[in-house]
Amino acid sequence: MLDNLDKFTRLKRGTAGAINIDPLQRGGILTPEAREAIVEWADGYSVCDFCTGALDEIQNPPIREFVHQALPEFLDVDEVRITHGAREGMFAAMHSLCKRGETVVADGNVHYTTLLAAELSGLKVELVPASEKPHYRVDPEGYGEAIERAKNRGEKVGMAVLTYPDGNYGNLVDAEAVSEICHREEIPLMLNGAYSVGRMPISAKRLGADVIVGSGHKSMASSGPIGVLGASEELASLIFRRSKLVPNKEIEMLGCTLRGAGVLTMMASFPAVVERTKRWDEEVEKARWFAEEMERLGMSLQGDRPHHHDLMFFNSEVLYEISQTAKKGRYFLYRELKKRKIFGIKPGLTRRFKLSTYLLPREDLETVLSAFEEIVALHPKA
Amino acid sequence: MLDNLDKFTRLKRGTAGAINIDPLQRGGILTPEAREAIVEWADGYSVCDFCTGALDEIQNPPIREFVHQALPEFLDVDEVRITHGAREGMFAAMHSLCKRGETVVADGNVHYTTLLAAELSGLKVELVPASEKPHYRVDPEGYGEAIERAKNRGEKVGMAVLTYPDGNYGNLVDAEAVSEICHREEIPLMLNGAYSVGRMPISAKRLGADVIVGSGHKSMASSGPIGVLGASEELASLIFRRSKLVPNKEIEMLGCTLRGAGVLTMMASFPAVVERTKRWDEEVEKARWFAEEMERLGMSLQGDRPHHHDLMFFNSEVLYEISQTAKKGRYFLYRELKKRKIFGIKPGLTRRFKLSTYLLPREDLETVLSAFEEIVALHPKA
Repeated sequence: MLDNLDKFTRLKRGTAGAINIDPLQRGGILTPEAREAIVEWADGYSVCDFCTGALDEIQNPPIREFVHQALPEFLDVDEVRITHGAREGMFAAMHSLCKRGETVVADGNVHYTTLLAAELSGLKVELVPASEKPHYRVDPEGYGEAIERAKNRGEKVGMAVLTYPDGNYGNLVDAEAVSEICHREEIPLMLNGAYSVGRMPISAKRLGADVIVGSGHKSMASSGPIGVLGASEELASLIFRRSKLVPNKEIEMLGCTLRGAGVLTMMASFPAVVERTKRWDEEVEKARWFAEEMERLGMSLQGDRPHHHDLMFFNSEVLYEISQTAKKGRYFLYRELKKRKIFGIKPGLTRRFKLSTYLLPREDLETVLSAFEEIVALHPKA
Repeated sequence: MLDNLDKFTRLKRGTAGAINIDPLQRGGILTPEAREAIVEWADGYSVCDFCTGALDEIQNPPIREFVHQALPEFLDVDEVRITHGAREGMFAAMHSLCKRGETVVADGNVHYTTLLAAELSGLKVELVPASEKPHYRVDPEGYGEAIERAKNRGEKVGMAVLTYPDGNYGNLVDAEAVSEICHREEIPLMLNGAYSVGRMPISAKRLGADVIVGSGHKSMASSGPIGVLGASEELASLIFRRSKLVPNKEIEMLGCTLRGAGVLTMMASFPAVVERTKRWDEEVEKARWFAEEMERLGMSLQGDRPHHHDLMFFNSEVLYEISQTAKKGRYFLYRELKKRKIFGIKPGLTRRFKLSTYLLPREDLETVLSAFEEIVALHPKA
């Protein structure tokens, strides 16, 4: 019993030296500074040596200044807390701002975790449908219609959520327009910025977001799970309210959240993250170039055109046709890419897949493009 | 704006080479294997390279085997999931097993996070009072009385919680007796094993626990935040139920929890953690010896006598008297210990403090004892 446990130790990630084009992975790669931090702060509850009662009040290390000054300025929002991730931030906001039985209106390209957060909070969800392929666009006006539909059913809409951008197509909806519609109905708008906060310049106030969540492991070069949750002063007083039973603790945070090394990796990466958001235009330009090259090979970019984000979804009839007769069937693409040390497209996908070019040097993207070109050239079509 | 951010990088923990007797820190120190793991898996969402839909189903790295075989065997419980920590596990269990408005009965030495988890779940709390100093004992029979009090008020008791041991005195209540009383009333019992799981041998079944939570950062040599949540088959089907909106995801987990390096540190430490629980008797013996020596110096051990845990609470009139005239007042003890590279007693405490001897070699404990002896000898009493 409980023997042969060595299999749980000395595990290697197995993607060392590879090019990883998984959108989930591109923005979470640690900076050298974060890598130092995680070694220094690796033990258990390391950040709590000098605890003064709450995570966000710890002065040594300077978590207080990071949470109460640096992050609010970075997100352009009144109050911020560290969470376990974007999903946990969404849950805290929904759970505190909405009453059970109310409805959340969200975009049709919504991440599944928004649905889970709503369901766990006892809320209904009304979606704003996205348009058909190839654009999958969400029209801001659709929010007005979705709110109307819910109201016509006698439901109270407690919150609207916009996934900014969504995690499938990398589409960026006009958040200001959505905000205007929601605010006209006195409904707070939450932005899910899991793929934007830490990648592109974001101002919650300018975008009209009352609440914003971000993901440290997805887009802030942090060791997961970790995220940020920002809110306007008014809503922050509700979300970050104190417990009645334990008056010095914030109840939605269950007291403290990131009581370990993750928060130190986010802090250590923060200067580099601030800098990289200033070079966002270059990332968009690179993504557009990559998409053009992919289209030359017979793939077809879905979503916004021109595209405004590094997360891109491609349809590929040519790879699908190859898979019909290829030796490994639909797994051929994964294996061919793996052979060339390229990871990140899920095993079995050929016809529809997403990828990201974020922070990859052009040489690496040339390698990826050559790989696709070779794979198409080497295989007979069905 | 957002300049001078270098203060968030290259931060040192500042306790290197020190003896840390903070109970919060003793069980969370990483093993060498976990230290390797955190470096290898540091990036963002590292464990999700080969995701098959859910964290606990990931086969590479072998999280599935760890969660579905190793941990259930270790805890002697039917089903286990990884959580962000003990508190998050308690919330998931209460939120799923109790209805809003119901009552949770808990021991009077309960950790504050149990109260937060109950409050966030919309539950009332009825405490089983602990006895007066110096023992602070919780009588299992008190559970029956607390259940009765709640029932007499017309409340439904949805769950009982026992903190095993509590985080102040390190007292271990007879869990089997508590379980018997709760089960007679058909009330499930949850054990908060934040200070036991990973330190001492624990069998949820033998202790009569229907649900059990543990803390990776407190007691399983893991990088926090991370914990475990175990449950009997019957209750697991409720706690780990699937979402209605996203049918392949577990709703209370918001899909996935520990999507980062923390889980790999828990896995890497696991063989050593299993081994160390087998040497628990030595730890108890060492704690008893240390307490005896402290009492020789005029401190007084609170809680269970004989003591059954490394977490110990001391009253110290002698240090309190010194603080009345010492140069730094009540901060003198912290400063004197710090001078001797001993950390873990909170700044300002002299009369009542807790500490832990867990996994500290006798030499280090001799150093701690000599420090106390010196400090007492060097200072005039008031």
